[in-house]
Amino acid sequence: MTSKDSMPSGPTCPVPISRYEHVLLAHGGGGRLMHRLLEEIFLPAFDNPTLRTRHDGATLVWSSERLAFTTDAYVVRPLFFPGGDIGTLAVNGTVNDLAMCGARPLAMAAAFILEEGLPMETLQRVVQSMRSAAAAVGVSFVTGDTKVVDRGRADGLYITTTGLGHIAEGIQISPTQIRTGDRILLNGDLGRHGVAIMAVREGLAFETTITSDCAPLVEPVFRLIEAGVQVRCLRDLTRGGLATALVELAETTGMDLLVDEAAVPVSEEVQGACEILGLDPLHVANEGRFLAVVAPEDADRAVALLQQHAPELNAAVIGQVRGPGQGQVTLRSRIGAPRILDMFSGEQLPRIC
Amino acid sequence: MTSKDSMPSGPTCPVPISRYEHVLLAHGGGGRLMHRLLEEIFLPAFDNPTLRTRHDGATLVWSSERLAFTTDAYVVRPLFFPGGDIGTLAVNGTVNDLAMCGARPLAMAAAFILEEGLPMETLQRVVQSMRSAAAAVGVSFVTGDTKVVDRGRADGLYITTTGLGHIAEGIQISPTQIRTGDRILLNGDLGRHGVAIMAVREGLAFETTITSDCAPLVEPVFRLIEAGVQVRCLRDLTRGGLATALVELAETTGMDLLVDEAAVPVSEEVQGACEILGLDPLHVANEGRFLAVVAPEDADRAVALLQQHAPELNAAVIGQVRGPGQGQVTLRSRIGAPRILDMFSGEQLPRIC
Repeated sequence: MTSKDSMPSGPTCPVPISRYEHVLLAHGGGGRLMHRLLEEIFLPAFDNPTLRTRHDGATLVWSSERLAFTTDAYVVRPLFFPGGDIGTLAVNGTVNDLAMCGARPLAMAAAFILEEGLPMETLQRVVQSMRSAAAAVGVSFVTGDTKVVDRGRADGLYITTTGLGHIAEGIQISPTQIRTGDRILLNGDLGRHGVAIMAVREGLAFETTITSDCAPLVEPVFRLIEAGVQVRCLRDLTRGGLATALVELAETTGMDLLVDEAAVPVSEEVQGACEILGLDPLHVANEGRFLAVVAPEDADRAVALLQQHAPELNAAVIGQVRGPGQGQVTLRSRIGAPRILDMFSGEQLPRIC
Repeated sequence: MTSKDSMPSGPTCPVPISRYEHVLLAHGGGGRLMHRLLEEIFLPAFDNPTLRTRHDGATLVWSSERLAFTTDAYVVRPLFFPGGDIGTLAVNGTVNDLAMCGARPLAMAAAFILEEGLPMETLQRVVQSMRSAAAAVGVSFVTGDTKVVDRGRADGLYITTTGLGHIAEGIQISPTQIRTGDRILLNGDLGRHGVAIMAVREGLAFETTITSDCAPLVEPVFRLIEAGVQVRCLRDLTRGGLATALVELAETTGMDLLVDEAAVPVSEEVQGACEILGLDPLHVANEGRFLAVVAPEDADRAVALLQQHAPELNAAVIGQVRGPGQGQVTLRSRIGAPRILDMFSGEQLPRIC
């Protein structure tokens, strides 16, 4: 690493990639630096209209039908954590990216990179988790690949899963659908996945064990859609958390968003753990939470549907779309003062998924 | 590692996975051990009819159309080698798996696992290679993902690419199509990729630089199909080489195959290098070579079409399908004595792709 490569300070510092001679952990953190990496290296090289939509999954039109296509690599440390493991994450994470496109999963592919010396029993446990998670959403792994790398690499194993889904006729879920006055809602309380991982990693014990929220989101999403809720846009709140998802949405659409911090559900235990760990729940990764932008007249019904599906999660309306503007997210804080919300510059929690 | 984990000797030793407490490099080698890993861990867990076909790609039927779906992780060392790099490999390898299903590529996805400290310039070079390779076959990357792992992991970078392709009406390419008397042909000479990688890794210099055969196979495959050649089955000759592809085919179909060693094209330079390196060209990985099983009456025309496409590769008929039997491959050697061909037990060349 050269002196050029030090992390920029502050949450918003928009340092161009050309300033970096080497990849940093922060380039994978889901924040501003990762966005720069995408914008300056990957997007110019692979530019095409589908990629330019910058969604978690691509929508392909095929034979007058629409397919959703998404891929994710999973490198979480540790491999096992309260509430899940790399296998459940690799299935739910990819299934959820399909759900965020309004797609039901059709088929999955898995590529394994195994470290020489990985206990066969560990591999078996992970594979069984994947099997259960896939069965829970009724999808199958139809193709795959396995590679083995030398001892000391790959932290046991990495998994890349790819999902193919079908978007039924009439479903139009995209940032372009967002309109002034739309409501922003969350399907549940924030921060459980990130805090669960950090607690294991740091060897922290809280009064109660905080478990990851890792879960498939197909059912809650389709409860909304099938009940006729006008769902404009969906985002799962993984790397970078709620803050990053909101900022991405505002920047993509040029819409100004207003979020009421007091309305954002965070459990007492997660709030307490975040204070100890120095984390902001708005930036912490989740693996079973999404935001939905819905028509204002459908907001209360949508929250009721989500609460009916999972009463313990405390789904809530947290804000609204103010209208075309500078593409900024304003957070009305608990003490009433408004502040502009931004994504993290680099990495709050490395290797979270 | 325990004493249980030592490599079995001999090329065919069918040791069950339960004998191994840990993953070995050999479990990724494309040989018998990797097949055991698939059969005993992955296939039982993820069992379904599509996966059971055991092809490099899955065929999905969608809206009366057929889609091919394939994924591969690339972990080649070194990242750059004569004739290509991990980026060209990651595109061509996946495009070729689609071609082997008789599919034209529709869309690609890429997931990058980057090592902290990777020079940004290296990433740029790899991404440019992917861009060029994708453009050469007219396919786009429509979605992707990037993760960063700690220094010392991931050997610079790993790439997983997933391909989605379309299989036109009337194309039926599958081991089940193979009939008695069919001819087996190769599109070119063997062993260049494996030898090129080994030469770089071992720091060997031969009289001429042997370059990898890494290339897209869409065009030669569709030359055959569009000329009306009755193509029964296709296999690309990657990990495990020609021998593994033939043995897999024989075992899947229960057909006995006969191959004439003297007819298998191997260049003098590769033959010489293999002797020095102690490799058998029949087991060495290729990244731009495939075998085609075609109707006997079309064999000569098929070879002529392949030679027309790339005269320097020395496409040739190398054998035939004897008929239903024990699912064995017999090699008629140069000195005339027949021997049963088997795949390697473990790993001839680790990290070749």
